[in-house]
Amino acid sequence: MDVNGGSYENDYNHKWKFQGNKELNNASIFSIRSVINLLTQNIDGNTNRPMISLAIGDPTGFKSYRTTSTAVDAVVDSVRSFDFNSYSPTVGVLPARRAIAQYLSQDLPHQLSPDDVYLTAGCTHAIEVVVSVLGRPGANILVPKPCYQQYEARAAFNHLEVRHYNLIPEKGWEVDVDGVEALADDNTAAIVIINPGNPCGNVFKYQHMKKIAETARKLGIFVISDEVYGHLVFGSNPFVAMGEFASIVPVLTLGSISKRWIVPGWRLGWIVKNDPSNIFNKTGIAESIKNYLDISSDPATIIQGAIPQILEKTNKDFFSNIIKMMKEAAEMLYERIKAIPGLTLPHRPQGSMAVMVKLELALLENISSDLDFCLKLAKEECLIILPGVAVGLNNWVRITFAVELPTFEDGLGRLEAFCQRHAKKQN
Amino acid sequence: MDVNGGSYENDYNHKWKFQGNKELNNASIFSIRSVINLLTQNIDGNTNRPMISLAIGDPTGFKSYRTTSTAVDAVVDSVRSFDFNSYSPTVGVLPARRAIAQYLSQDLPHQLSPDDVYLTAGCTHAIEVVVSVLGRPGANILVPKPCYQQYEARAAFNHLEVRHYNLIPEKGWEVDVDGVEALADDNTAAIVIINPGNPCGNVFKYQHMKKIAETARKLGIFVISDEVYGHLVFGSNPFVAMGEFASIVPVLTLGSISKRWIVPGWRLGWIVKNDPSNIFNKTGIAESIKNYLDISSDPATIIQGAIPQILEKTNKDFFSNIIKMMKEAAEMLYERIKAIPGLTLPHRPQGSMAVMVKLELALLENISSDLDFCLKLAKEECLIILPGVAVGLNNWVRITFAVELPTFEDGLGRLEAFCQRHAKKQN
Repeated sequence: MDVNGGSYENDYNHKWKFQGNKELNNASIFSIRSVINLLTQNIDGNTNRPMISLAIGDPTGFKSYRTTSTAVDAVVDSVRSFDFNSYSPTVGVLPARRAIAQYLSQDLPHQLSPDDVYLTAGCTHAIEVVVSVLGRPGANILVPKPCYQQYEARAAFNHLEVRHYNLIPEKGWEVDVDGVEALADDNTAAIVIINPGNPCGNVFKYQHMKKIAETARKLGIFVISDEVYGHLVFGSNPFVAMGEFASIVPVLTLGSISKRWIVPGWRLGWIVKNDPSNIFNKTGIAESIKNYLDISSDPATIIQGAIPQILEKTNKDFFSNIIKMMKEAAEMLYERIKAIPGLTLPHRPQGSMAVMVKLELALLENISSDLDFCLKLAKEECLIILPGVAVGLNNWVRITFAVELPTFEDGLGRLEAFCQRHAKKQN
Repeated sequence: MDVNGGSYENDYNHKWKFQGNKELNNASIFSIRSVINLLTQNIDGNTNRPMISLAIGDPTGFKSYRTTSTAVDAVVDSVRSFDFNSYSPTVGVLPARRAIAQYLSQDLPHQLSPDDVYLTAGCTHAIEVVVSVLGRPGANILVPKPCYQQYEARAAFNHLEVRHYNLIPEKGWEVDVDGVEALADDNTAAIVIINPGNPCGNVFKYQHMKKIAETARKLGIFVISDEVYGHLVFGSNPFVAMGEFASIVPVLTLGSISKRWIVPGWRLGWIVKNDPSNIFNKTGIAESIKNYLDISSDPATIIQGAIPQILEKTNKDFFSNIIKMMKEAAEMLYERIKAIPGLTLPHRPQGSMAVMVKLELALLENISSDLDFCLKLAKEECLIILPGVAVGLNNWVRITFAVELPTFEDGLGRLEAFCQRHAKKQN
C-alpha cells in the first residue's frame, strides 16, 4: 500500500526515470547468437523433422567430437584438490600461465615467459580486453571483411572505430595488403587477423604473414592475431603462429582451449604478448591490459588449475582424429557444392571449422539476399546456416563443417534440395 | 632484417603509434587488488615471520573454511556427464536458472521464474553488466559511502556518474535516506545497496529496507541490491532479501555462490529481476541486460551444470558451521578492539565477512592516514588490512574476520602491538 492507501501494483501512472541502453542494441545486433535466434524462430513449428544446424563452431553435441578424458580428468583433479577455489590473481594463476607459455613456445622462434600470458574467460573475453584497451576517442583498428563479429560488437560498445580491409576470395582469402595501407592513419592502433580463418576456412602462408607483419611495422601499428582455431588445419598450408614475426612487429596472440579441445563452454582463453623488444611495456599497452583485468571477472580458477595437465598430457591421437573428421566433412562439402545450383565455393577449406560459400542470387528464384536465403532455408528445410550479413559479407553464407558426417550429409542434402527447388529455369 | 638490411630489433627509432588507455589507470586504482598489491610490496623482505592477511573476503586457504563436498561432487558429476561442454545460452542454461529462481524464492513473497534469472561470471561480472546497461551520457547512480569499489571502478570506465550517499556509523550503518533524496535528480537511474554490508558488516532491518524501497519509488529509480553475502548473518537482524519489497519498487538482486559456499574462484553469479509489475521490460532494462550478455563471456558451462545439485543438496550444517566460525571471530574482534588504543568499532558485526574499524589518528603517533597506517602495519608486523581509502572512507580500516581463529588471534595481537607502540603518550 502506498501513502495514499492505494496498492502499488495498481498505480499505473507512476513515473520511472530509468531506461535501457540503446547503444547495446546496436552492439548486440552484430552477435551471431542474435542472428541464429532469428533463424531458429523461423523454423516451421508444425514439422516433425529434426533441425540441423551448420551455423556455429560448437560440435560438442556430437559423440565423436567429445573432448578427451584427459581434459575431464584434469578438471576433476583440480576441483578435488581444493587448491583452486580462491580468487585467482587478475592475470591468472602462475602454473596455468607457465603451461600456456610452454605450449605456445613450441611454435615460436623465441621462448615465452609466464609474464607474457594473461588468462581470459575464453577468447570472447580476450577480444573484450583488447578492444577496451584500445578504445579511446578517435582511435581505430583494422578488421577483416568478412570477420567474426565479436570485434565489431565490442568496438561499437567501446566507441572504437572499425575500418574494414578486404580478404580476397580469389587469392584464398589473403589480406588485401594495399588496402590495409590505404586505410591506416595516425589514429590506427592495430590490425586484427584471424588465422586459421573464421569465417573463411583459409590458412595463411608463411610469406603472406611476413608481409602482413612488415606492413604493420611500416604503419607503426601492432598485430592482434586471433588464433582460436590454432592447429585446426588439414590443407596444404601448415599453421604458422603470427608470433613467428614478433621481431618485425609486436603481436598480441589471442587463443583458447575451446576449439582444439572441443570445450567452448569452459571459457578458458588467453592474451599473449609476442614482443621481444618490449614495445607493449613501453607504450603502456601491457599496463592497460593488466588494469582492465583488475576490473574484470576471470576464468574459473578450477579450470585454470586444470590447464597444465590438459596442455601437457593430451594424446596426439585425440587431435588427429578431430582433424580427420573435419577434413572429411570439408572435402564432402567442397565436392557436393559443385553440383548445387546457385552456390560456389572458391577454394578448398584448409582449416578452422567453417567456410564461406558464395550465393549466385541471379541463378536463384525468389531469393533477395543471404538473410532471405537463410530464413527460407530454415523454414522449408529445418536447416540453419549463417547468413553472410552476420559476418559482414553480403550474398555469402557461412557453413560450419565441424559436424558428424551423417548429420552433415543430411544437411547438405537439404541444402541441395532447397537450391534445386529455387533454381531459375534456364531459357 | 628490414628492407635496409638492418636488424629490426636494433631499429630503436621506429615510431609506434599505439598507446595504452589512461582511463583504465583511473578505473583500476579503485580496485582492492591494486591496493593490496601495494601493501604486500611494503612487507619487509628480510623477515621470516609469515604474512597474515585480514584484507579479503576469501577464506578458501583455511582448511576449516573448505567448501562442502556436495559442491565438489556436483562439479565432478557435471564435467563427467559431457553435457555441459558447449557454449551456454547467453542468459545461462535453463536448469541452473530454474534452480536459482527456486533457491531465491524461498526468501520472497513472490515466486521467481527462470526468466527472471541471468547468470554471470561471479558478482563482479554482474556489476559490470548492470553498470554497462546504465552507462549513458549524463546518467548517474547512487552508491553508498563506504562501498565495495567495483561499482566505482566500472562506472569510471563506462562514464556513469557515481553519487555517494552516506551510511551512518552511529545508526549501525543505516542509509542516510534524507541524503539520498537530496542527491537524486532526473538523471538518476538506481540506488545501490549492499546487504549484508560490505565493508561495514551490518545487516539492514526490515523497516529500514522498506523505507529505502519507498524512497526509491518516490524518486522514480530502481534498487540494485547486492546480496553476495546473503544469509551470512549472525546478529540480531535476520537477512531480508530486498526482493521482499518488489511490489513497491523494481529490484535487481545481484548474488553468487562465492561467499556462502566459499568458492569465489568458481565465478558463478547472477542478476535477478524482482519485478512483478514488469517495469524492467517496459523500460528496456531487461532487453539491455540481455544485449550486454550477448557480447560478453559467460560463467563456465560445467559450473552452471553443477548449480541445481549445489543449491538443492547442500547440508544446512555446512552453512551453520561457517556462520559459527565467523561469529566467533567477529565477537573476538569486537571485544579485543576495546583494549587497542586508537581503534574503535562503533557496533557489533552482524554479517558479511568484514567490518569497518575507526582510526583515531589523534591518539596515534606518526601515522598520517589510513593508508599510512596500513603501509606501516604491513612493514612492521607483516599484517595486511585494507585502508579505508580503498572503500571510499578515510581514517577507517576494513578488517576481514572470515579467518581461522588461531590466525585471527595472531593477527589481532600484531595489530594491538602496533597500536600500543604507536600510541601517543598521555600528558
